[in-house]
Amino acid sequence: MNYQSFKSVEGGICAASGFKASGTYCGIKPPADPSPDIKHKNDICLFASDVECNAAAVYTQNKVKGAPIIVTKANLEKSGNKALAVIANSKNANTCNADGVEKAQAMCSLVAKEMNIPEEKVIVASTGVIGQVLPLEPIEKAVPVLVKGLCYNKHLEAATAIMTTDTVKKEYAVEFKIGGVTCKLGGMAKGSGMIHPNMATTLNFITTDCAISAGLLQKALSEIVKVTYNCLSIDGDTSTNDMVLLMANGLALNGEIDTEGEEYEIFKKALFEVTANLTRMLAKDGEGATKLLECVCDGAKDKDTAITIAKSVVCSTLFKAAMFGEDANWGRVLCAIGYADADFDINKVGVKLKSELGEITVCRNGSGVEFSEEKAAEVLKSDEIYIFVNLNDGSESATAWGCDLTYDYVKINGDYRT
Amino acid sequence: MNYQSFKSVEGGICAASGFKASGTYCGIKPPADPSPDIKHKNDICLFASDVECNAAAVYTQNKVKGAPIIVTKANLEKSGNKALAVIANSKNANTCNADGVEKAQAMCSLVAKEMNIPEEKVIVASTGVIGQVLPLEPIEKAVPVLVKGLCYNKHLEAATAIMTTDTVKKEYAVEFKIGGVTCKLGGMAKGSGMIHPNMATTLNFITTDCAISAGLLQKALSEIVKVTYNCLSIDGDTSTNDMVLLMANGLALNGEIDTEGEEYEIFKKALFEVTANLTRMLAKDGEGATKLLECVCDGAKDKDTAITIAKSVVCSTLFKAAMFGEDANWGRVLCAIGYADADFDINKVGVKLKSELGEITVCRNGSGVEFSEEKAAEVLKSDEIYIFVNLNDGSESATAWGCDLTYDYVKINGDYRT
Repeated sequence: MNYQSFKSVEGGICAASGFKASGTYCGIKPPADPSPDIKHKNDICLFASDVECNAAAVYTQNKVKGAPIIVTKANLEKSGNKALAVIANSKNANTCNADGVEKAQAMCSLVAKEMNIPEEKVIVASTGVIGQVLPLEPIEKAVPVLVKGLCYNKHLEAATAIMTTDTVKKEYAVEFKIGGVTCKLGGMAKGSGMIHPNMATTLNFITTDCAISAGLLQKALSEIVKVTYNCLSIDGDTSTNDMVLLMANGLALNGEIDTEGEEYEIFKKALFEVTANLTRMLAKDGEGATKLLECVCDGAKDKDTAITIAKSVVCSTLFKAAMFGEDANWGRVLCAIGYADADFDINKVGVKLKSELGEITVCRNGSGVEFSEEKAAEVLKSDEIYIFVNLNDGSESATAWGCDLTYDYVKINGDYRT
Repeated sequence: MNYQSFKSVEGGICAASGFKASGTYCGIKPPADPSPDIKHKNDICLFASDVECNAAAVYTQNKVKGAPIIVTKANLEKSGNKALAVIANSKNANTCNADGVEKAQAMCSLVAKEMNIPEEKVIVASTGVIGQVLPLEPIEKAVPVLVKGLCYNKHLEAATAIMTTDTVKKEYAVEFKIGGVTCKLGGMAKGSGMIHPNMATTLNFITTDCAISAGLLQKALSEIVKVTYNCLSIDGDTSTNDMVLLMANGLALNGEIDTEGEEYEIFKKALFEVTANLTRMLAKDGEGATKLLECVCDGAKDKDTAITIAKSVVCSTLFKAAMFGEDANWGRVLCAIGYADADFDINKVGVKLKSELGEITVCRNGSGVEFSEEKAAEVLKSDEIYIFVNLNDGSESATAWGCDLTYDYVKINGDYRT
C-alpha cells in the first residue's frame, strides 16, 4: 500500500527551502564498479542548510558502532542539537578501524574549514564494508569539490552517492500546511542489506523547512522511527552504522511548533508519510529481492504486540523463501507468529494473503481453511505481497516491511567485499 | 571438532539394551518421492522398550504447538513420566489442523491397542508440512506392520523414517560405566530446516539402559539441551514441533542414579556427547548447506553471555552467505557480536577463523588486523569452519552450531510443499 495523504513533491532532501546538496566520485568505490547508471558512481556527498537547523537523530543499537556514529553523536551533543551540514560516503563503513574516530573527525573538520562553519555542526555518516581502513586522501580532494558544487537541485547527486548494493535511489518528499504556511519535508535513504534496524536504518536523511522546536523534533522522529524504519527487515542483521537524521531549518517561516497540538500532529503525519514511503522503497530494493512483503497485524491488544508479530512474519527466512517460490506455505506464517515474543491467543488468529491480483484466506481460528492452490499461485505472482494477520484480540495494528529471500541475495553476499 | 571422550558404539536408539525399533512406508510421503536411498522412503516409525522407562522431554517454546506436542505432554503428565513406546511420522507436522489433537491421540491409541499397553505410555511425534490435514487411514494400516516389525537392530528403519529434507540420517551412541556396570546411551535426530531450537529441535529421541531417577533424568536433559540443541540454528525459524525425548529403562542393572554425585556427572557427560554430536550432524546437514559453522565464544564473564554471542554469529544471514562465498568478511562477525543481547566490551574482542587447512586472526581489540586474503581463502575452502571469538572478559565459554546460506537453501524452501 502506498502512503499518500499529503501532496508528494519532487526534490528529496532539497525539497525544503534552503537545503543544497552535491555529490561526486572520489575513489573510495573502485573505478571499475560496473554500474550502468553513471550517477551511481558517486561515492561521497554533502548537503547543507543556508541557516542553522534543529537536528534530531536516532542511531543503531548495535554495540559495535561505526566511528561516524560516535563522532556525530558527540558533535550534536556539543552543538546542542544544531547542525548545518552533512557529509556521507559509501563503500567503506569506517567501522572496527583503530583510526576510525580520528578519520570521521577529519571528515567533519575538512567540511568545517572549507565552509567556514563550526566543526561540531557537521554530521558525518559512512556505509559500506566493515573493518577496512578508510583512505582520507580522496576525501581531502573531494571536499572542496563538494562545497563548490552545492546546489538547491542536486539532491540526486547525493541520493546516488550513498548507494552500495542498492539498485534504485530512494527519495520522497511531501508538502503540508502549518498555520496556513506551506512547509516541505523530504528525505533520502540508502540500504539494501544488513537491514534489521533497531533504532534506525543505515543512512536516512530527512530535511524540512518547517519551524519546530528541537525537543519536539526529536520526539516526533523517535515515535515515527518506531513504526517505520524499525519495522523493516531485509536480513535480520542490525547494521553498525544505522542512522536517521532529521534537520529542520525553519525557513518556511511558519510559527514555530513548540507544543503537542494539532500542528505537531500534522508534522508527525508528514514525517510518517515520508519515512513510511522510504521504508517501503528500502524493503522493495532489499538485496536480491524480487518481491516486497508487507505484513499488517491487526486486532492486537496493544501496539507493541502488533509490531512484534508483523516483524516476526517478514523476518522468517522460511516464509521469505516460500514467497520467492510463490508457494502459499502459510504454515510458516503461523510458525513465525508463534515464536514471536508476544502474548495472544493462537486459536483466534486469522491470516489472509493478498496482492493486486487477488486475495485468499488461508487460516481462521489458528487452523487452516481450504483454498484454491491455483488462485493462491495467481495472487503470489505479484511483486508486492500483503500478509494480513488478525489476532482478533483488540484494536491495535502495525505494519512491517520486508522482502523475499532469493538466489541473488546469496550471490550478492557470498562475495560482497570484492 | 568432534566430541569423543567415551567409546562410540553402533545402534543409535537401539544401542541401549531392551530397545526395539521398526519403520515402514505408509503413504504420507508421496509415492514418487525421488529419494535415491530406499530407506529414506520410510515415513513412519515405532520404537519401544521391553520394560517401562522413566521419560524426560523438552518441547518447543513456539506458541503454535503441533498437536503431537500437546498429546505427548498430556500423556507424560498422566503416566507420571513413564513411557513404553514412541510413534513418529514425517512429511506432515499435524500442526494448525482443527482435528490435530484427535488424530495424534488416535495414533497413540492405535499403538496402545496393538501392543496391549496403556495409551498414556505412548509418545507421539510428527514432522513435515504445517497446516495440512493428516490422513489417518495409512497410519491405521501401518501400526500392525510396525508392531510386528519391532527388532533390536532396526534403528536405521526408524532413523530414516523421520527424515524430511535431511540428506543423511543422524545417529550417535556411546558406552559408559556407572559403578562398574556398562551402560549405553544413543539417539537419533531429524532436522534440516526450520531449525532454531528454543528448548529442543524437531524430533530428537535418545534412549539409555542406565538406571536413573525420573527427576535427575529431566534435570540432565534440560541442562544439556541448553548447551547443545539450543545452541543450533539453521535458519532462525523455531519449529512448532520441536521435541527431545530421553527414555531410560534401567536394563543395564546399575544401581539407580538418584543423587547428583560423580555418577550423575558421568551420565550427563555421556548425554552431552551424544547430543553434541547429533547437534553437529544437524548443523552440517542444514538445508542446502555446504559448510558446517561452529562458533566458540571464549573469555565470557558468564555462560549465558557466551551462548548469546556464539549463537548470534552462527545466525547472521550475512555471515552465513559470506561463508558460502568463502569470503573472510569478518566485519559481519563483529556486527553480529554487536547486536547480540549481551554485555561485554567490544574493544577487547578478538576473532580467529580456523579450519583443518589453517588459521587466521582477523580482529584484535575490536579492530581489524592485516591478514593475507590468500591464506584466508585457503582456510575457508574447508567444509567445516570454526570461528573463535574471545571476549577477554572472563573464563566462561560456549559453542554454537550453524551452516552457510546457499542457493540450495532458497531452492529447497521456495518450493517445499510440492
